[in-house]
Amino acid sequence: MNSFSAGDSVRIGIVGLGRLGRRHADNLATRISGASLVAACSPVADELRSARDALGVERLYDSYAALLADPQVDAVFLVTPTSLHPAQIIDALRAGKHVFCEKPLSLDLDACATVIEEARRHPQLKTLIGFVRRFDASYRDAFDKVRSGRIGRPFMVRSQTCDKNDPDGFFVRFAPTSGGIFLDCSVHDIDLARWLLGNPKPHRVFATGTIALHPGLAESQDVDNGVAVCEFEGGKLAVFYASRTMAHGHDTTTEVIGTSGALHIGRNPRANRVEIADAHGMSNECTLTFYERFADAFVSEAQAFVDAVRGDEALPLSLHDALEATRIGIAMRESLISGQPVMFDAVRETA
Amino acid sequence: MNSFSAGDSVRIGIVGLGRLGRRHADNLATRISGASLVAACSPVADELRSARDALGVERLYDSYAALLADPQVDAVFLVTPTSLHPAQIIDALRAGKHVFCEKPLSLDLDACATVIEEARRHPQLKTLIGFVRRFDASYRDAFDKVRSGRIGRPFMVRSQTCDKNDPDGFFVRFAPTSGGIFLDCSVHDIDLARWLLGNPKPHRVFATGTIALHPGLAESQDVDNGVAVCEFEGGKLAVFYASRTMAHGHDTTTEVIGTSGALHIGRNPRANRVEIADAHGMSNECTLTFYERFADAFVSEAQAFVDAVRGDEALPLSLHDALEATRIGIAMRESLISGQPVMFDAVRETA
Amino acid sequence: MNSFSAGDSVRIGIVGLGRLGRRHADNLATRISGASLVAACSPVADELRSARDALGVERLYDSYAALLADPQVDAVFLVTPTSLHPAQIIDALRAGKHVFCEKPLSLDLDACATVIEEARRHPQLKTLIGFVRRFDASYRDAFDKVRSGRIGRPFMVRSQTCDKNDPDGFFVRFAPTSGGIFLDCSVHDIDLARWLLGNPKPHRVFATGTIALHPGLAESQDVDNGVAVCEFEGGKLAVFYASRTMAHGHDTTTEVIGTSGALHIGRNPRANRVEIADAHGMSNECTLTFYERFADAFVSEAQAFVDAVRGDEALPLSLHDALEATRIGIAMRESLISGQPVMFDAVRETA
Amino acid sequence: MNSFSAGDSVRIGIVGLGRLGRRHADNLATRISGASLVAACSPVADELRSARDALGVERLYDSYAALLADPQVDAVFLVTPTSLHPAQIIDALRAGKHVFCEKPLSLDLDACATVIEEARRHPQLKTLIGFVRRFDASYRDAFDKVRSGRIGRPFMVRSQTCDKNDPDGFFVRFAPTSGGIFLDCSVHDIDLARWLLGNPKPHRVFATGTIALHPGLAESQDVDNGVAVCEFEGGKLAVFYASRTMAHGHDTTTEVIGTSGALHIGRNPRANRVEIADAHGMSNECTLTFYERFADAFVSEAQAFVDAVRGDEALPLSLHDALEATRIGIAMRESLISGQPVMFDAVRETA
Repeated sequence: MNSFSAGDSVRIGIVGLGRLGRRHADNLATRISGASLVAACSPVADELRSARDALGVERLYDSYAALLADPQVDAVFLVTPTSLHPAQIIDALRAGKHVFCEKPLSLDLDACATVIEEARRHPQLKTLIGFVRRFDASYRDAFDKVRSGRIGRPFMVRSQTCDKNDPDGFFVRFAPTSGGIFLDCSVHDIDLARWLLGNPKPHRVFATGTIALHPGLAESQDVDNGVAVCEFEGGKLAVFYASRTMAHGHDTTTEVIGTSGALHIGRNPRANRVEIADAHGMSNECTLTFYERFADAFVSEAQAFVDAVRGDEALPLSLHDALEATRIGIAMRESLISGQPVMFDAVRETA
Repeated sequence: MNSFSAGDSVRIGIVGLGRLGRRHADNLATRISGASLVAACSPVADELRSARDALGVERLYDSYAALLADPQVDAVFLVTPTSLHPAQIIDALRAGKHVFCEKPLSLDLDACATVIEEARRHPQLKTLIGFVRRFDASYRDAFDKVRSGRIGRPFMVRSQTCDKNDPDGFFVRFAPTSGGIFLDCSVHDIDLARWLLGNPKPHRVFATGTIALHPGLAESQDVDNGVAVCEFEGGKLAVFYASRTMAHGHDTTTEVIGTSGALHIGRNPRANRVEIADAHGMSNECTLTFYERFADAFVSEAQAFVDAVRGDEALPLSLHDALEATRIGIAMRESLISGQPVMFDAVRETA
Repeated sequence: MNSFSAGDSVRIGIVGLGRLGRRHADNLATRISGASLVAACSPVADELRSARDALGVERLYDSYAALLADPQVDAVFLVTPTSLHPAQIIDALRAGKHVFCEKPLSLDLDACATVIEEARRHPQLKTLIGFVRRFDASYRDAFDKVRSGRIGRPFMVRSQTCDKNDPDGFFVRFAPTSGGIFLDCSVHDIDLARWLLGNPKPHRVFATGTIALHPGLAESQDVDNGVAVCEFEGGKLAVFYASRTMAHGHDTTTEVIGTSGALHIGRNPRANRVEIADAHGMSNECTLTFYERFADAFVSEAQAFVDAVRGDEALPLSLHDALEATRIGIAMRESLISGQPVMFDAVRETA
Repeated sequence: MNSFSAGDSVRIGIVGLGRLGRRHADNLATRISGASLVAACSPVADELRSARDALGVERLYDSYAALLADPQVDAVFLVTPTSLHPAQIIDALRAGKHVFCEKPLSLDLDACATVIEEARRHPQLKTLIGFVRRFDASYRDAFDKVRSGRIGRPFMVRSQTCDKNDPDGFFVRFAPTSGGIFLDCSVHDIDLARWLLGNPKPHRVFATGTIALHPGLAESQDVDNGVAVCEFEGGKLAVFYASRTMAHGHDTTTEVIGTSGALHIGRNPRANRVEIADAHGMSNECTLTFYERFADAFVSEAQAFVDAVRGDEALPLSLHDALEATRIGIAMRESLISGQPVMFDAVRETA
C-alpha cells in the first residue's frame, strides 16, 4: 500500500554531504520528479550551510537520530562511509523511513544479513542500494537486448572498472577501510555480471593482482590492478578487471557474450561526440571520473527510487543482490590474499 | 536590471503543445532550476487538460492574448507554427514578457527585422530563438576548442542535418509552408557554421538538390536531399547537406576544419554506448530523431534561457544571429530554384 | 587474341623512376604474378643504376624511343609528367606495346580524344589509366555492395581527397602544370563518383575554394582547399572536397548514399589497428600519404593490368572513363575561376 | 656465415599442402622476394598436381625423406600436424636445411627441448616457428611503441583469440590431438604477452572455461570458451580468453597496459574500411577467419624467414620463445583440468 497521492512529493533527507553526497543532493533538489529535498544531515557545519544556501534545504541536522525523528522526512539518502551503512539503514527502517544507500551495503556478510532481516519486518518500506550502473541507459539497453534473446544464451561477462590514476593516492589512505579494490570497484561489475547472466549462483572465484604505481597499498594487502575470475552454476563465467592507474580516464566497460552474439558497453570511454584530427592522429577525449560517466544514471537511479517509494515502479534490485555482490567481492579478496581459488560455502547463501 | 531575487522562479507559460511543445513543457515542469511552468496555451482542449493532469499546470488558456494578459506569467515559450512567430514575439514583448521562440525566427526577412526593432525597445526583456545545437555539450566543447585555438584558424565548416526517412512523408504536406529543406533543416547548420567560424558575413551561396524518394515535393519546388555551399568573407567556406531520406536514423554531423587540425562532431550517430557483435558484424544503433539526439540540449537551452532571464547568464545567441540564418537559408532556396549562385545584397544586412 | 601462354610472363618496361615510379617498379619486380620487370627508362642515370642494382633490371634506357624499339618489352608503365602522357601512350601503342599510364590521362580533352582514337586502332592492346582507388579492397567491397542493391538506388556520392599539409609546398611550385587541385586531387573522386553512381552523364558543376595556408597558389588561380558539386543526369549528385592542408594525414573518404542505406569508405583514416589510450584520450594514428593508404591497391592495380594483358581479366575502367574524369575536372576548374556554374557541352562528350 | 649471394634465391620445399599449406605455398611462389618455391611434399597426389599446375613447382615428393635428400632445396616449410613437428625439424636440420615450422613447436616439453638441443648443433641453420602475429603490422607497431616507452612500463597484457563458430565443429574432432583450446589458440596470445612484456619468467597460471555450444568437447576435457590468468615475475600479469563460438567472426584483440598509457590492437575486427548505415544502425563487417585477419602477416613472416636465411635480418623469435609458449599453454591446460593454480617448476625452464 502506497501512502503517496498524486500531488505529494517524497520528502527526502540526505545524510552525508561529501563529494558524492552533494551531487545526490543537487539531483534531488533540481532533477527528480515527485521528490523534495527537505532535510540534510552532516557533522560538518559548512556543508549544512551550503545545502541551505545553494539548494534551499531548511531542515538541517548534525545528528542522524534527530533527522530520523523528523516526521517531515519520508526517506533518507545515505551517502556515508560503508562501515555505517548497516546500522544507519536499520535505524531508518525502524523510524519508518524509506532508504536509499550508496553501495556497497556492507563489507560484512553478517551485517548484510541483519539488514535483510530487518527490512523483511518493514515490507511497506523500500530500500535501494545504489548500484548505479543498472540505471545507466546503455547498460539498460544491453540488459533489455540480452533478455530479448538478441545474443542467444548469455554465458560470459567481462567487465572492468578502471579509474584514472590519482597521483595523490587518496585510495591508498582509504585502503585499510575500503575493503580493497574488488569490494570498492569490482563490486559494480559483480552486480552487473549477476544481472546480465540471470542471477546465477557463484561457484568459485580466483583473483590476483599487481601493484603498478602505489606501493603503499602493500600494507593493506591490496593492489592497484586486480583481476578475478568467477565461475557460476550452469557453466557461466565472469572475468573482472579493476584498476586505479589508468592514464586516460575512467574506463568502465562490460561485455556480455552469448551463443549467437555479444554486446559491448562503453568500449571507448568517449567524453562526448567530438573527435579531433590533428598532428597526433584522430582522437577523442575520455570521461575522467565515474561521476562524469554516470551522471545521468545517478539521476535515473534517484528517480527510480522515488518512483518506487511513490508506488509507481518496482525496484530493479534487491538487498539480496547487494549481499551477493559483497559475498563475491569478499571471496575475491580472500583469493587475492591466499593465492588460492575460493569455493562458495553453500551455508552462507541467503535464501 | 534583473527583477528576480534568489528564491524567485521564472514563471513560464508555454504556447503550443504539439509534439515538441509537450517536450518543452515537460522539461520546464521537471528539469529546469529556477523556473516554474505555470501556464499553457493551446487551441486544443485535450492538450490543455493533459498539461494540467500530467504536469500540474493550473493556468490554462485557449487564447494567446489572454495568456499575455496574465500577470502571473513572466515569460512565454513559443512552440508554434513559424508563420506566427514574429507577431507572437512582438505581442509578448509589448506585454512585458521574456520570450523563448522555437527556430526559425521567421521565413521572411522583413518580419525578422521588425522583431529585432521591437526587441530593441525592450532592452530589459530577453528573447532567445531556439537554435538548440548551440546548447549541446558536444557542440559546446567543439566551440570552446575552436575558440581556444585547438585547430588553428578555422576556415571551413561542413555540416549536415539528415533525418530518418518518414515513409508517411509528413514533411511533404508541410513543404508549402516549411520554407523548404534549407530553411527547415539547414538553418541549424547555417547557424552552427556562423558560430564556429566567428560570425563572418556571407558573400554568396550556391545550392542544388534532388528528389530521391518523395516526388510530391516537386510541387513546392522543394527537394528531399539538398546540398549548398556558402562563401563567407575572408575566404571562409561552409558546405551543407540536408536529407529527409536516411535509412539509419537522424544523423547530424558537423566538421570544423582549421589550419592545424579539424574537429568532427557526431560522426557516428550512435544511440548510446552499446555495440553489438553478431552475424552481421559489429554495429551500433543510431539516434532515430532529432529529439533523441538533442534531448539534453533542449534542457540546457531552456536552462540557459531561464538563467538569462534571472540575470545570471548572457544569452549565447542574438536575434541578429537568427536573422542571418534565415537570410542565408532564403538565399539557398533561391539558388536551388534559380539554379544560379546568389550574391548577398549588402543593403539587406542588419547592422 | 592473347599471345601469352601459361608460363609466359608479361615483360614490362617502366618509364619514369621518380618517387611513385620506384614504387611501381618495386611492385612489378617483386609482387606481381605473371609479370617481369625487364626494362627501365629514365633520363637520370642514377635512377637507372638503382633499378639495376636493387631490382635486377638489365635493359636500361635513357631514351623512350629506344625502349619502345626493344622487342623484349611487351608493355610499358608510364609514371611520367602528365603533359607527356598522350604522346607516350600513342607512341607505345604504335610500337605494339600494352600501356599502363598513371592518372590523369591528360589535362586536355582533345588530347584525350586523340589517345582514344589511336587505341581503337589497336584493339589487341590493353591500355589502363591508373585510377588506383578502384583497386582498393574497401572501395571494391563498397562497389560490390552498391551493385548488389545493399543501399537501394544510389543517388549521391560525397568524396574527398585531403593531403597532409606539406609545409614546403611542393604542390605550389607544381601548380602551374598540375591543372589545379581538382584535376590533380579530385580527379580520383570524380572517377569514383561516376563508378559508384553507374556512370551517369554529368549535367553541370559548381566549384569554389579558398587558400588557407599557401598564398603562392593565387598566381596559378588555384586554391589549397576546394569544394565542388556535380549534378548528373537522373538527379544524381556528387559533392567533392579536396585539401592540401590537413594536419593529421592523408584523409581520403567517400560516402555513397542510397535510397535504403549509405556506405562510408575510410571515415577514420586509421594507419593500422592500434589505438592508444593516454593522457590525451583515445587515439589512432592516421595514414600520412596516399601511398601508405593505397599501397595494396597499387599492387592490385598492377596485377589487374597484367592479368588483362595476359587475357585473364577484363579491365575495370576504360579510356572513356579517364576522359570523363578529366572533362569534369576541367569544368570544375573553369567554375572555380569564373565563379559560375559550368554546363557540360553535349558536343564534347565522347560516344 | 651466409652462403647466399645477392642474386641467389632461397630454394624452398613446402611440406604439407592442406588449407594453410596451400596459402604458404602461394605466398612463397608469388610474393616473397629472394625465394623460390621449388619443391613440394605431400602424401596426397592431387595436392602435388595442383602445386605443379597452379604454382609451377617441379620437384614433387610424396616422401619427406626424399625431399630432404634433394640438394636443390635450401629450406623447408613445415605445415604439418603438430605431432610431426619435432622429428621433422630435427631431420631437416640434420639434412642441412633451414626450417620454417608452423606453430606450435610441440605439445610436449621434452620434444621442444630435444629440438632446441639439435638446433644448437647447427648454428648456421635458421629455424623459425610461425608465431605469425609478431609479423602483423599493427602488432609490430604496438611492440615498437611499447619499447619506445610510449605507455611507460608495461605491466599487463589482455589478449584473446576468438574464432567464428564452426557449426560443423571441426575442432571437436581435432580436440583429442590439438592439445586443447589453450595450446591451440591461446598459444599465440601467450607468445604475444611474453613479447610485449619483455619476456618475463612465468610464475603461476590459473585457467577455467565453459562449454557453450559443443558438448562433444567434454570427452577431451576441453572447452569451447576458456579464460586463463598468468602471473609473471616482477608483478606482471596476463589475462587470456579463447573462444570457438563467436557469432561475428575471427576476433583477435590484445591490450597492453602500462604505467602511463595503454595500447589496444584490433579492438574492432573490421574486415576493411567500409561502414554501412542502414535500418539496423551503423555497422562494419568483421574478418571471418584468422587467415583473412593475418594474410599480410603470413607474407611478412615468410619474408622475414627468407631474409634471415639470406643473412639479411635476425630472426625476431627463438625456439626458446616457442618452448616457453608451449610450457605456459600446458600449465593452463593442467589448471583447466585440475581446477587448481599451477606453479611453474623452475627445473623445467630452459636456460
